[in-house]
Amino acid sequence: MSARVILHEVGPRDGLQMEGQVVPLEKKEAWLRGLLESGLDIVQVGSFVHPEKVPQMADTDELFRRLSAGKTSPTVLSGLALNEKGLERGLACGVELFCMGASASETHSRKNTGMGTDEAAARIIAMAKAAAAAGKKAQVSVQSAFGCGFEGPIPEERVLKMVSAYLEAGVRSISLADTAGRAHPAQVERLFGEVFRLDPGIECACHFHNTYGLGMANIYAALRAGVGSVETSFAGLGGCPFTKVAAGNVATEDLVRALQQQGLRKEVDLDRLIAIARDVAAHFGRDMQGFVYKIQERV
Amino acid sequence: MSARVILHEVGPRDGLQMEGQVVPLEKKEAWLRGLLESGLDIVQVGSFVHPEKVPQMADTDELFRRLSAGKTSPTVLSGLALNEKGLERGLACGVELFCMGASASETHSRKNTGMGTDEAAARIIAMAKAAAAAGKKAQVSVQSAFGCGFEGPIPEERVLKMVSAYLEAGVRSISLADTAGRAHPAQVERLFGEVFRLDPGIECACHFHNTYGLGMANIYAALRAGVGSVETSFAGLGGCPFTKVAAGNVATEDLVRALQQQGLRKEVDLDRLIAIARDVAAHFGRDMQGFVYKIQERV
Repeated sequence: MSARVILHEVGPRDGLQMEGQVVPLEKKEAWLRGLLESGLDIVQVGSFVHPEKVPQMADTDELFRRLSAGKTSPTVLSGLALNEKGLERGLACGVELFCMGASASETHSRKNTGMGTDEAAARIIAMAKAAAAAGKKAQVSVQSAFGCGFEGPIPEERVLKMVSAYLEAGVRSISLADTAGRAHPAQVERLFGEVFRLDPGIECACHFHNTYGLGMANIYAALRAGVGSVETSFAGLGGCPFTKVAAGNVATEDLVRALQQQGLRKEVDLDRLIAIARDVAAHFGRDMQGFVYKIQERV
Repeated sequence: MSARVILHEVGPRDGLQMEGQVVPLEKKEAWLRGLLESGLDIVQVGSFVHPEKVPQMADTDELFRRLSAGKTSPTVLSGLALNEKGLERGLACGVELFCMGASASETHSRKNTGMGTDEAAARIIAMAKAAAAAGKKAQVSVQSAFGCGFEGPIPEERVLKMVSAYLEAGVRSISLADTAGRAHPAQVERLFGEVFRLDPGIECACHFHNTYGLGMANIYAALRAGVGSVETSFAGLGGCPFTKVAAGNVATEDLVRALQQQGLRKEVDLDRLIAIARDVAAHFGRDMQGFVYKIQERV
């Protein structure tokens, strides 16, 4: 297990896109600045989708402009681009790391993008190359890598084929996403093991939804397999709107606390993260999925 | 990891003792019969405490009598005995496996039993011997083995000293309980590894509270270390009334589903467990901590 687990906060995108109510720009900016100041490594500000389709993400460009202006934080600002138009918008407003993905599930891919798996993968490879040509980082993902809410199990060969295609195109930062929350720890360790057999030098990230309560166990399985970067959501926000069954992500502050218990990432400001999660719960007026923020007393 | 993980259901005791309302005897009996019929290995019916102190457990003797009468199920009926009086009651009403524990935290031990750690351990060793002399099985536990809500970290030597005392007394079925939910996976694997170094033949069980969201990750760490028996609660009920910070256990049906994904324990009736968890949620009129029972559709 790596001594420096890279913490990639995806709640502002994966979490807030699921919320029925649109969070006001100023509130979002305050949360984002807090997340940056807490010392996380990467923060996903939003996604570049059509503002009428996903009004929760309509302020993504503006948020990038505000956070980029006079930026001194070492935290990398990431943005999710679904297509070429999104890439163009992201290049114009200050995205530092482009995230893009294609689904290993044919059904999920078609519902999500209107394209089959191979076509969607080819498209994001081209986008990743364009991002690199523009001097930006890119991370590509395999969505529904551990199973699909529509199709059920996904053959591992299909996932490995996509990873191979990414590698052949020179994209070496790769995330496997458990879009429907169907991964289990033994599977996680095995599949990431296979991925590293393709190339031990891959920068691997993981993204688990907590649908069946296995999110944290899967993160530990991934870390054990050598995965270096973990995608989580502050307060446990999150889910994917295009799968039948979805639930939040593991809460960032829960993972940070767990790592800090082990002596890892102690420089991250856990108290700050907990304060933000409490503000999220107060804002939405409900209990969030995170555990640690609910605890008043810590010994 | 063992192909046959022993499933010890402790919700009827560890869960229901935490509930503000007393569950009617007939409802409890229906849940217990369902848990037996679902094919779990051990079901903890209740604890032998003073009925005025813990009215939720006042019907424990009667439940044992009802479940023992004409019993054909291979499921073992366990009961928690806190003292000699409890042992006596349990021997009279049909307990098959006595569970008893002492805390590795001096403060927790004194609050819980009025005795220090050493005295409490000596007492339960004597009780375990008495149970064995009466032809019954006994499992002893180390409570607060991974940290304490009052004292904070608990030195591992203290836990290992208690385990050694149990072993020297000939008690070989030992559970480590994370009473305050403070364990983290690396610690779990290390501490159980140390325990097995004392004697590789110990029958080890684990009991984790989900206070900080690490329950399931800790279970997987324990299984990886060679632990053969896992204590969970149906619907995720549970917690310990004598620690400052507590939350439910991992839900039995969540663990069973996860193991079945891996091809393990497929003979356990998951649908039955889910139905019982839904009835629990309906009975209490609130969302329980389990994940799987909430999902209407399974692919």
